[in-house]
Amino acid sequence: MKKITNSVTITIMNIQTLKGFRDFLPKEARKREYVKSTLKKVFESYGFEPLETPILEYEEILTGKYGEEGDKLLYRFVDNGGRNVAMRYDQTVPLSRVVAQYQNELPTPFKRYQMQNVYRADNTQKGRYREFMQCDIDTVGVNTALSDAEIVAVVLAGYKALGFTNIKVLVNDRNVFEGMTPQIIGTIDKLKKIGEDGVIEELVARGSCKNAVEATNLLQSIIDAKMPERLQEIFAQLRILGIENDVVFSPTLARGLDYYTGLILEVESPDYPVGSLGGGGRYDNLIGMFAGKQIPAVGFAFGFDRTVEAMDTLNLFPKELERAAVQVLITIFDGGLEQKSIEASSYLRANNIATELFLGEIRDKNPLEKQLKYADQKGIPYAVIIGPEESEKNLVTLKNLATREQQQLDLDELLKKLQ
Amino acid sequence: MKKITNSVTITIMNIQTLKGFRDFLPKEARKREYVKSTLKKVFESYGFEPLETPILEYEEILTGKYGEEGDKLLYRFVDNGGRNVAMRYDQTVPLSRVVAQYQNELPTPFKRYQMQNVYRADNTQKGRYREFMQCDIDTVGVNTALSDAEIVAVVLAGYKALGFTNIKVLVNDRNVFEGMTPQIIGTIDKLKKIGEDGVIEELVARGSCKNAVEATNLLQSIIDAKMPERLQEIFAQLRILGIENDVVFSPTLARGLDYYTGLILEVESPDYPVGSLGGGGRYDNLIGMFAGKQIPAVGFAFGFDRTVEAMDTLNLFPKELERAAVQVLITIFDGGLEQKSIEASSYLRANNIATELFLGEIRDKNPLEKQLKYADQKGIPYAVIIGPEESEKNLVTLKNLATREQQQLDLDELLKKLQ
Repeated sequence: MKKITNSVTITIMNIQTLKGFRDFLPKEARKREYVKSTLKKVFESYGFEPLETPILEYEEILTGKYGEEGDKLLYRFVDNGGRNVAMRYDQTVPLSRVVAQYQNELPTPFKRYQMQNVYRADNTQKGRYREFMQCDIDTVGVNTALSDAEIVAVVLAGYKALGFTNIKVLVNDRNVFEGMTPQIIGTIDKLKKIGEDGVIEELVARGSCKNAVEATNLLQSIIDAKMPERLQEIFAQLRILGIENDVVFSPTLARGLDYYTGLILEVESPDYPVGSLGGGGRYDNLIGMFAGKQIPAVGFAFGFDRTVEAMDTLNLFPKELERAAVQVLITIFDGGLEQKSIEASSYLRANNIATELFLGEIRDKNPLEKQLKYADQKGIPYAVIIGPEESEKNLVTLKNLATREQQQLDLDELLKKLQ
Repeated sequence: MKKITNSVTITIMNIQTLKGFRDFLPKEARKREYVKSTLKKVFESYGFEPLETPILEYEEILTGKYGEEGDKLLYRFVDNGGRNVAMRYDQTVPLSRVVAQYQNELPTPFKRYQMQNVYRADNTQKGRYREFMQCDIDTVGVNTALSDAEIVAVVLAGYKALGFTNIKVLVNDRNVFEGMTPQIIGTIDKLKKIGEDGVIEELVARGSCKNAVEATNLLQSIIDAKMPERLQEIFAQLRILGIENDVVFSPTLARGLDYYTGLILEVESPDYPVGSLGGGGRYDNLIGMFAGKQIPAVGFAFGFDRTVEAMDTLNLFPKELERAAVQVLITIFDGGLEQKSIEASSYLRANNIATELFLGEIRDKNPLEKQLKYADQKGIPYAVIIGPEESEKNLVTLKNLATREQQQLDLDELLKKLQ
């Protein structure tokens, strides 16, 4: 900020955020931070490490990687230096670039997590955001059943750490669809949405099958599909890990995307049946694109917004996130007693009690009552009052703002009460 | 990702990040996260709450707020919907917008912290980044000496929490410069860089003073300036807070920027004398610009990159950030013994030991030796080996990768050792 701007002349401006972009005020910001830090801890406990990449890349790094549709949704522009640049669209292409650029520094497998915003100029009427958090884990450089099984294990551990008690991981293997056209796979993938009849109808309507009998047989053959060998291996390991009961072989799961090469997985909470909370799979032909060789990889993307919504609906957020992190507001009775209040706040903070001191002007502008209202507004559970009576007795009044109960205590007692 | 891209055809591309933009590989990303989470805890313990704003704003929200120079450094473009947009340049203007947009929802004072990247198309040859983290605290809506003093207290608490033992907060009040031109103030501000003689010379050369005598007198009058009344009040409160010894009245401190209206502060570590680690002050005419009224505010910006550099130089980062967060790598001897290794990893994780299981192909591709090298590369302190001998005895070998010592233990003993 280099210039004082006259505040009056610019109030005619329309003050708003761009469509598809959001401010996160404290309560929401705290919830999001909670999800991030909870998942981070889980990821790190399995040996995944953090990675951050820039928001802007050379345009040529991103274009052509997300299909024609994706290219249209890219935010791109020419920067002040005449470079064609584009904004981060996902975290997979930047990961590919990092894997190529630092190949001699990174361990194999490279297990990284990444939680950054991505940008898509999508239609917001579909309830989509243009700026949204992605939360990815990927294991790069190995193609073993154990690395597949571990992704399933981390995903389950992640959702459980967030408080989901009823989580199902649906898994499949792209080989179930071997020899089938992308069109057939796309139709099968809609089974949950449009039902068996809908799938059969669409298979015929699109010319994928000659008639309803052939379509019925095709669908039935997939539903009855035998578990591919690799998926059997994965299940054997899930059994050793003790989590096979949370994982369901789901042969009609296709996840639309044609870049998966083996395992596909999707997570659902039967308590929040509005679609999957996240998904992923093995994709062995993608990460090596900048390195110029095949580099196998398996990963999962937690649907961050969907997960936050589900946690809101299912009341999984700890209650304390509803409020500021401080436990107590020290009010200031008047100028003469300010020192007592400051000292009380220092004493509590020195003893690790998160403490807010009221900072506003006192006397008429913010009488006690108004200060207590401020505490209520921030959801602070306790207030301390030090008036002339308390000061004389060398005590403070502690007020529980939920029950409105109050009691007089000395500082030691106050500390014990708040600890 | 919607499309498999042929990896070979695009390897001719120049794989690099844009100038002024950085990847943060795990070690760096961990350090940055450590600084963020340490400061966050301090901020929250004083009642500051998190805020996040979008990366893009309507261009008119940002233009004209940072002076002509700033306008030139803005990343701006026309989005796919024909809107003129600009990327976040700082966190103060977005805060002003938020204060106007949500004025009925926010408490007064509104104490918020914000740690997001900002974007400036600056000259990278000056060692500047084009994408860099800002880390701001601001108390909005009150103009009291106590709110000024609290900013100083939080800043000190923040740097101390990061491990700085020798921190000085230089403070001044813009009123020391009352009646002086911005040019004079700008010259005085260079005192530390160019010395008294340099300042006197420049005051004369720029025509701010008629001659060296006048310039000397002017400079001396500032050096001898009496502490303004408000600053005396602030110091009285710093004394009550017990931190006055870390704060120095520095009448020549101007911080260049002309939007400050009262307190100015800057933080230095004498152990890392390469300039200030952060700065701030009171700015009462800025935050209200979108609300159309005066809204007082006081704040501080931690120089994030500079602080990380200082901590690197002064060895203030905990050693464990050098390595992945896992304590132990469970190696896999061969396919037949894989189950034992998986079980050991589950056992440790169930007991809250962050544990990595080797995921790569075994046998020839990754013999034990190579797996231990992998642990070394990630800085994992211990490895567990379960070979045929251990398996038969129902024991594991725990190897300390720093000392190369190893011992055979059962799982219970292993857990106790790692706890």
